[in-house]
Amino acid sequence: MQRTLDIGLNDLKEQLITMAGYLELAVVYCTQAWKNQDASIASSVYQIEDKVNRAHLEVDATCLKLLATQQPLAFDLRFILSVIKTNTDIERMVDQTVNITRNSEYYLKHPPFFDTSDLSLMSDHVRQMVKNAIDAFVKSDVNLARGVLEADDKVDRLKDKVFKDALAWMKGHSEDIEQGLNVILIARNLERIGDHSTNIAEDVIFSISGKDIRHKSLGQRFQENKK
Amino acid sequence: MQRTLDIGLNDLKEQLITMAGYLELAVVYCTQAWKNQDASIASSVYQIEDKVNRAHLEVDATCLKLLATQQPLAFDLRFILSVIKTNTDIERMVDQTVNITRNSEYYLKHPPFFDTSDLSLMSDHVRQMVKNAIDAFVKSDVNLARGVLEADDKVDRLKDKVFKDALAWMKGHSEDIEQGLNVILIARNLERIGDHSTNIAEDVIFSISGKDIRHKSLGQRFQENKK
Repeated sequence: MQRTLDIGLNDLKEQLITMAGYLELAVVYCTQAWKNQDASIASSVYQIEDKVNRAHLEVDATCLKLLATQQPLAFDLRFILSVIKTNTDIERMVDQTVNITRNSEYYLKHPPFFDTSDLSLMSDHVRQMVKNAIDAFVKSDVNLARGVLEADDKVDRLKDKVFKDALAWMKGHSEDIEQGLNVILIARNLERIGDHSTNIAEDVIFSISGKDIRHKSLGQRFQENKK
Repeated sequence: MQRTLDIGLNDLKEQLITMAGYLELAVVYCTQAWKNQDASIASSVYQIEDKVNRAHLEVDATCLKLLATQQPLAFDLRFILSVIKTNTDIERMVDQTVNITRNSEYYLKHPPFFDTSDLSLMSDHVRQMVKNAIDAFVKSDVNLARGVLEADDKVDRLKDKVFKDALAWMKGHSEDIEQGLNVILIARNLERIGDHSTNIAEDVIFSISGKDIRHKSLGQRFQENKK
């Protein structure tokens, strides 16, 4: 017979997978809006935000109930704490997709007249980070989680490049200043989605291995891995 | 005789109060850097970041230990969950003060030639929000926490004004574009510190009353208060 705790933990995992599915869609949609010049897609992001906000409260309530009634220990306890944090990260990521959607609405009305292929590349990388972080959680895959941490450096470098190029353009084209700022703000929001993906990856590693690798450099993390 | 759980909860509160003290200092320092043209203050913010990062891990470890060994219920359990979230918020707020410090270093080398009194006012309001959110936590004061939620609207309006004014200046003074962007990014970081203060305030209200008021409008929150 399955333990009540196991049933509760499975329900929790299902709830989080549903939220993560919405998040992945929101990341795709908010990017499509400006990439494909499709303004109609914005309302889908706002609908997702509503659903994720409701799920955010439900997941926290389930965690509280499980902690109060089941007194989980060791792996199960770490898993619930990771869910509490991942839940917050997913909700904040969806907030960022809403910000990007708002910026995209401006972008569509006033498209920038400079090359935004790096922004597009950045959004592809971030989308992959989100997918891998969620997959790492679902499959309890530490290696996939470590890959997310490494990918973050690439996203940060791309963000720096988008900032630098947009700024250079703005200096020479004062009529394009708002468009440039808008691209910079989209890049900033994408960077933050990447940061939240690394938080989830760190929580996955903690949940599975019990090792807290936050606030450590990549070098220190690999050292620990070899031990 | 005091319960082991009570001793643990008191220790946890003390740990968080120490972190909060560092955070308040970091908010003051990162603002002083650009307000008082004092570059020497940056290193103090970086030192605080190190201390808060260490404390961040310790607080989470203490929470895990208390949950595993003491099986807290009702108020005590909600308090620990609020601490886990507040701990994350404090760490992220300190990250934002580090961002502001980096922007301030640029600001000091290239001061903007437009009026930044609204940015200054915004930073005063955010500092007060941080202080009140922490005081609400320490004193378990729901009314103080509600005041933090109301203050966030004022900060958001000020941010919009800073954005608008900086943008208008940038359009007319292409030599000042980087300075303008820098001011916009400082305002954005301050806004996020304000957002984290409201997260803490919401957690304080949940911890004390058991009411989860997240994702509700101010109107709905006051309706609930009257019930």
